[in-house]
Amino acid sequence: MTSEFDLIRRYFHWPVHHTDLGGGDDAALLTVPPGEQLAVSTDMLVEGRHFFVDTDPAALGWKSLAVNLSDIAAMGATPRWATLALALPDDDAPWLGAFAGGLRECADAYAIDLIGGDTTRGPRTINITIFGTVPTGRAIRRSGGRPGDELWISGHPGRAALALWHLRDGIALNAPWRDDCLHALHRPTPRTRLGPALRGLASAMLDVSDGLLGDLGHILETSGCGARIDAPALPVAPLIDACGDAALARRACLSGGDDYELLFAAPAAQRPAILDASRAAGVPVTRIGQLTEREAGLVLVHADGAREALTAAGFDHFADRG
Amino acid sequence: MTSEFDLIRRYFHWPVHHTDLGGGDDAALLTVPPGEQLAVSTDMLVEGRHFFVDTDPAALGWKSLAVNLSDIAAMGATPRWATLALALPDDDAPWLGAFAGGLRECADAYAIDLIGGDTTRGPRTINITIFGTVPTGRAIRRSGGRPGDELWISGHPGRAALALWHLRDGIALNAPWRDDCLHALHRPTPRTRLGPALRGLASAMLDVSDGLLGDLGHILETSGCGARIDAPALPVAPLIDACGDAALARRACLSGGDDYELLFAAPAAQRPAILDASRAAGVPVTRIGQLTEREAGLVLVHADGAREALTAAGFDHFADRG
Repeated sequence: MTSEFDLIRRYFHWPVHHTDLGGGDDAALLTVPPGEQLAVSTDMLVEGRHFFVDTDPAALGWKSLAVNLSDIAAMGATPRWATLALALPDDDAPWLGAFAGGLRECADAYAIDLIGGDTTRGPRTINITIFGTVPTGRAIRRSGGRPGDELWISGHPGRAALALWHLRDGIALNAPWRDDCLHALHRPTPRTRLGPALRGLASAMLDVSDGLLGDLGHILETSGCGARIDAPALPVAPLIDACGDAALARRACLSGGDDYELLFAAPAAQRPAILDASRAAGVPVTRIGQLTEREAGLVLVHADGAREALTAAGFDHFADRG
Repeated sequence: MTSEFDLIRRYFHWPVHHTDLGGGDDAALLTVPPGEQLAVSTDMLVEGRHFFVDTDPAALGWKSLAVNLSDIAAMGATPRWATLALALPDDDAPWLGAFAGGLRECADAYAIDLIGGDTTRGPRTINITIFGTVPTGRAIRRSGGRPGDELWISGHPGRAALALWHLRDGIALNAPWRDDCLHALHRPTPRTRLGPALRGLASAMLDVSDGLLGDLGHILETSGCGARIDAPALPVAPLIDACGDAALARRACLSGGDDYELLFAAPAAQRPAILDASRAAGVPVTRIGQLTEREAGLVLVHADGAREALTAAGFDHFADRG
C-alpha cells in the first residue's frame, strides 16, 4: 500500500479557505469567530452496514460528508470544517480517487475546509468529524419544544426509502420520479441554508436520519411532549407519483431514513416567518402536526378522523426491517 | 446488539466540565476562549493493525486517547475536548466496559471532556478526534526549525519498542525495568504540560509516534534543514538497564515509535528556559544534536567521531520491521 502520507497528499490535500493551518502538522488550527460557539458532530460509516462493497464511491464520498453537514444544520449552525479518517483494505486507487472526488464535490458545494485526516489499512470505514459555528446561545436543540408548537418537516422525506426498497426489494418506481428518489438516497441535500434560517423561529429541531417518527421520538423525549401527526398533511404527493401506492408512500415518509430533512417545532406565531425562511432558503416546508402534552403520547390522525396511538415501541412497526 | 443509544448512555455518558452542550443532540457545543485558536487532530485505530484482538481493552482505551492528546501537546496546545467513534463486532459488554473505563481514566487524568460519539456494528475500529486550544499565533509547528537550533527529546524514547520486541520477539528485559517498558507501550504519558510550556522557546516540534529518526525527517523536510544527532548524547541509559544491550537500546531509541515523546528544536539561547520548563513540567529533556544546513543531510555522529550519513530512505534501515 502506498504510504499514508502519499495517500493524503494525492487525494485529500485541497486548499483551505477559512482555516489558519490545514493538514500536514500534528494538528490543524482554526479560529472560531468571536461571539460564536463551535458545533461538533462525528459519524462513522462501515462497509457492509452503512454502505455496500459495490456502492458508487463518488456518491459515497458525497454522502459521507453530506450526512454530517446535516447534523450541523439541524443545530441551526453553519458547517465550516471537517476531518476525515479512512480505513481501506488495499491500495485501490480508482475507488479512492472517485471517493475523494465525490467528497470534494460536496465540500466545494458547501464551502467546507477539510482540515486533517488519517488514512490506514483496515476494513473499509469512513469517519468524518464536522465543525460548524453558531452565534452563542442561538443553537436549536432537540429539547426546546412545548405543547402547542406546530410540527414542520422540510422537503419530501421518504424518497430515499423508496429508492432503497426499489434497489433492494424490487418495488417499481415510475421513471420520471425514480431518478429523484435515487438522487435523494445517494446524494442527499443537507439543509444548510434552512437550518440557520430557523434560528429564533424553531423551538426544537433535528435531522431525520432514522425515520420521521423515530426521530420525532427524540424531540418528544427531550422536550417532554407528545405529538399529533395529521396523516393527510404529510407531503407524500411526489412519493405517490413515484410508487403509485399511497400506503407505501406514507410508510416511506413516516419510517424511511436517509433523506436528511429537518424536522422542527415552532410556535404558531412563527408561521409567516418560517415560510419566509423556507422561501429564502429555497426549501419547501410542510406543517404536519402539533406537539401536545406528554400524556397524550404520539397519535397519528387519519383522513377519516381515526386516531392511531403509537407507543415508543410502536415506532418500530414503521421501522425499515432491512 | 444493544442499540446505539443504550451503548452510548451506558458507557460514555460522562459529565462534561468545560463544554456548553455535551452529547445527545445533533451536535455538541463548545466555546473557544477569546484570543485562542482551536487545534484539531484525528486518529483511527484498527484491530489487527494498531492493536490486537487480545489487547487489554482498558489499556487500549487509555492509549487511544493518550496518543491524541500527544498530537495536541506537540503543537504547544492544551487538549480539552474529544469525540469518539467506535465500531464493534458484537455486544461484548465486558470489553466495552473495560475500554470505556480506560478511556475515562485518561480523560479524567487530563481534564478532557468527551463531547460526542458514534457507535456502530463493524470490525473493531476506534476513531478519536481531539480538540485543544492555544493562544492565537503561538502554536509550535514542525516547520520553524533553523540551522543552528539545538535538537531536544523528552523522556526516554525506545521503552515502548523494547516492550513490543519483548512481547512479540521474546527479547529479554530485566525485571525492574520491564514494567516501565510495558507501561510506556500500553499506557503512554502524553506530554501535555511540557508541550505548552515550550511555546516561545521551541522553534519546531512534533511527537514521536513512528520513531525518532523518521519523525525528525518531518521537521527537516518542512523546516528545510539537515541535522546532526550525537549518538553518545541519546538518553539510552534506562534502555540499556532494561535490555542489557547498548546497540539494541540505541536502535529502540532512534527507531522505536509509540512512546509519544516530544522532539523539538530551539535556539541555543533558550537552553536555560527549556530546562526550567522541563523542571516545571516534571519531564526530563535531553539535547541530542543540532539542526544544520539542508545540504548536510542527516548525520549520526558516533562516540569515536565516526559520521554515519543517513538519507531519507536510510531512516528505513532503523525502521521496526514488524
